Amino acid sequence: MPTQISDIRDAGASTALLTDQYELTMLSAALADGSAFRNCSFEVFARRLPDGRRYGVVAGTERLLDALEQFRFGEPELAIVARFLDDTTVEWLRNYRFTGDIDGYREGDFYFPGSPILSVRGTFAECVILETLILSILNHDSAIASAAARMVSAAGGRRMIEMGSRRTHEQAAVAASRAAYLAGFDATSNLEAARRHDVPSAGTSAHAFTLLHTTEDGPDEAAAFRGQVAALGVSTTLLVDTYDITEGVKTAVAVAGPELGGVRIDSGDLGVLARQVRQQLDDLGATKTRIVVSGDLDEYAIAALRAEPVDSYGVGTSLVTGSGAPTAGMVYKLVEVDGIAVEKRSTNKASRGGAKKALRVVRPTGTIVEEVIYPAGSPAPVSEADGATELLIPLVREGKVVESAPTLEESRAVLKAGLVSLPWEGLKLSRGDSAVPVRFSGGEHQ
Amino acid sequence: MPTQISDIRDAGASTALLTDQYELTMLSAALADGSAFRNCSFEVFARRLPDGRRYGVVAGTERLLDALEQFRFGEPELAIVARFLDDTTVEWLRNYRFTGDIDGYREGDFYFPGSPILSVRGTFAECVILETLILSILNHDSAIASAAARMVSAAGGRRMIEMGSRRTHEQAAVAASRAAYLAGFDATSNLEAARRHDVPSAGTSAHAFTLLHTTEDGPDEAAAFRGQVAALGVSTTLLVDTYDITEGVKTAVAVAGPELGGVRIDSGDLGVLARQVRQQLDDLGATKTRIVVSGDLDEYAIAALRAEPVDSYGVGTSLVTGSGAPTAGMVYKLVEVDGIAVEKRSTNKASRGGAKKALRVVRPTGTIVEEVIYPAGSPAPVSEADGATELLIPLVREGKVVESAPTLEESRAVLKAGLVSLPWEGLKLSRGDSAVPVRFSGGEHQ
Repeated sequence: MPTQISDIRDAGASTALLTDQYELTMLSAALADGSAFRNCSFEVFARRLPDGRRYGVVAGTERLLDALEQFRFGEPELAIVARFLDDTTVEWLRNYRFTGDIDGYREGDFYFPGSPILSVRGTFAECVILETLILSILNHDSAIASAAARMVSAAGGRRMIEMGSRRTHEQAAVAASRAAYLAGFDATSNLEAARRHDVPSAGTSAHAFTLLHTTEDGPDEAAAFRGQVAALGVSTTLLVDTYDITEGVKTAVAVAGPELGGVRIDSGDLGVLARQVRQQLDDLGATKTRIVVSGDLDEYAIAALRAEPVDSYGVGTSLVTGSGAPTAGMVYKLVEVDGIAVEKRSTNKASRGGAKKALRVVRPTGTIVEEVIYPAGSPAPVSEADGATELLIPLVREGKVVESAPTLEESRAVLKAGLVSLPWEGLKLSRGDSAVPVRFSGGEHQ
Repeated sequence: MPTQISDIRDAGASTALLTDQYELTMLSAALADGSAFRNCSFEVFARRLPDGRRYGVVAGTERLLDALEQFRFGEPELAIVARFLDDTTVEWLRNYRFTGDIDGYREGDFYFPGSPILSVRGTFAECVILETLILSILNHDSAIASAAARMVSAAGGRRMIEMGSRRTHEQAAVAASRAAYLAGFDATSNLEAARRHDVPSAGTSAHAFTLLHTTEDGPDEAAAFRGQVAALGVSTTLLVDTYDITEGVKTAVAVAGPELGGVRIDSGDLGVLARQVRQQLDDLGATKTRIVVSGDLDEYAIAALRAEPVDSYGVGTSLVTGSGAPTAGMVYKLVEVDGIAVEKRSTNKASRGGAKKALRVVRPTGTIVEEVIYPAGSPAPVSEADGATELLIPLVREGKVVESAPTLEESRAVLKAGLVSLPWEGLKLSRGDSAVPVRFSGGEHQ
């Protein structure tokens, strides 16, 4: 991760056009009227959490820093923007390098309404054109991680496999796998996530493989299981619900022996079936064979299976769609210009002007008490001795990603530790308020 | 578009790992037990439409055909799959080319529950490994196009701009722009969609640009407007709701003159504001200045503004999240093996075995009467003379994309024509049943 933004230009991989046109027309107007080089602070925050959610999880930061390094305008990109921009602006973009500073909440950390998740500082010109890329990545990845964390909590330590790639955009799927792993999932079905982000990959089998072994004489589930076990070993997981589940389990153990790794159930009343299948497996001596369940699972269905003998959950659609909240609702707002706090004033969209910092205050027991947001230029209103820690860490300094930017494994550990520090109401799946109160302290805009 | 799949290999752009691991472990088992080369038909269909929706729109076909051409395993991809696959399977993948046939519903056409949207035929080995890629693309793009088509209907011919890039994954945003344009949107804010898919791009301005012009003396909206008009001309659209809308409109016309192209309102009660602003603009002589509204618009909000003097809608979040249905729920199922119809039998997931074709029957007035699905080997149950047309068109033959594969503009025309052929209930936004009955005709699985 620690690389110099100006060193890298992977031809063909530019992220510069993953941008809304208005960012560049604003740039053009600002270059023309001389306002482009005013010093600005932009902040990312969410006005609210998705309906009924008690916390959000920051995700996508590492992907964002990588994408930022590829935010360059080469000839192919310049040819597009030259359709609607003046020459001065095009030339400015040709030499574009972000040279400012970025601070952010740790990836894997919580956020709440108003949390200043990311602070981007530099000239208006260099900061404004990053809006779309920043929000696309953080809104998507945070939505997935926020949903995934609830699922991980609900699963109570049981193994979780992300298998939603078929239900979302092919590249969003890769980011969703990564976000799920960040949130505590154990593995993904997505091979590009394994390659790109080193997420452990896993997989079972689909109904097609069993159906493939149909002959003129009819279905032959045993042949399918023999084929799978011969190729992949007895530790494999056999899908037992293509025809009749009781027959499927019987056939699976007959073929693989009691050392069979697992069986997967993908349909039906999973609680009832899990109990029946566990009993049947135990009766057959397959006491260590694991039960994997899948099929329209969300955090509520996962929680409902808590008392059942389920060893592992495969989660697809609800994970990659953020379980009802597919986007995190984060915005990127200009909050300060040459030291002057600025904010919009129209209905329902008022933002709090001025560059901000944030503290989280934790009891000696480790439980979070509150989040305190305060003007960046003021002293911290709560001391470290009183349990406060700064939430914004340096990510980019003078255009360079800092050496200490966290890895995915480190971010995963941040969230894992965080989940035991939430007030207990915070982990409830039911609809509720933000788990942690956010307080604004000091400053003219209090 | 018409290219030979085997001719293209853009290094670094392989789509082969956008795949679930189980597709490849099934391949491995099938290669080992000899079932890999049985002739198979897979079909894509949706068991149901999203809750309350009356039709779905097929989208993503052209993207899928492009991605299929890049579905190759080079050394980087092989290195990943070699972690869990045997040498035979790895070698087979090294030489992988899809050599089979694909038929599909036209991109831009409707689909209903059970419609056989895509038919993929070849050996099990070559077909099964395409499942993830096919479903990722069709599920995402169809979800967006289906939502977008409802918005276009609701807008009743007014201009629609897609501006949701900041609310979804950065690459999903590009596909969403394309799907929205397919569905009848006029333009997108997304520049990569302009580059990659030739979607017309557009943009206005953000509150940041107005806030940027704040000085020690306070806000200076007029300076911001002057800057924008100087750089972009009087045909530009000025964002008038940063402070006070009435003042904003007054200032906008004072700066740009009555020839001002447009004003954008992004907050507040848009209906009330649109009326007030129209009156104010007319009073100022700016009778041709357009009113653009944006801010949490979905198809219902768009419809609610039908009687108001709105000229153009900017739609973001609800578009890129499929307006409550972010994935289309399509599945890819093995339906036939060496001429034998196959289907899963477990609870709630029964599929209808056997390769299928589909007809749409249209009255002489042009209104759709029904969709008829029938066994691929049987004669069409309704004749062309009786208003039936075949819905599946050839897309790939012996691994080659056919010469006549439709362009985005052609697909856009398909949907535009389709929207006037739906039974009138079909265009209602309220929750309802599928607009067109789907009938299965003939075959052992009727």
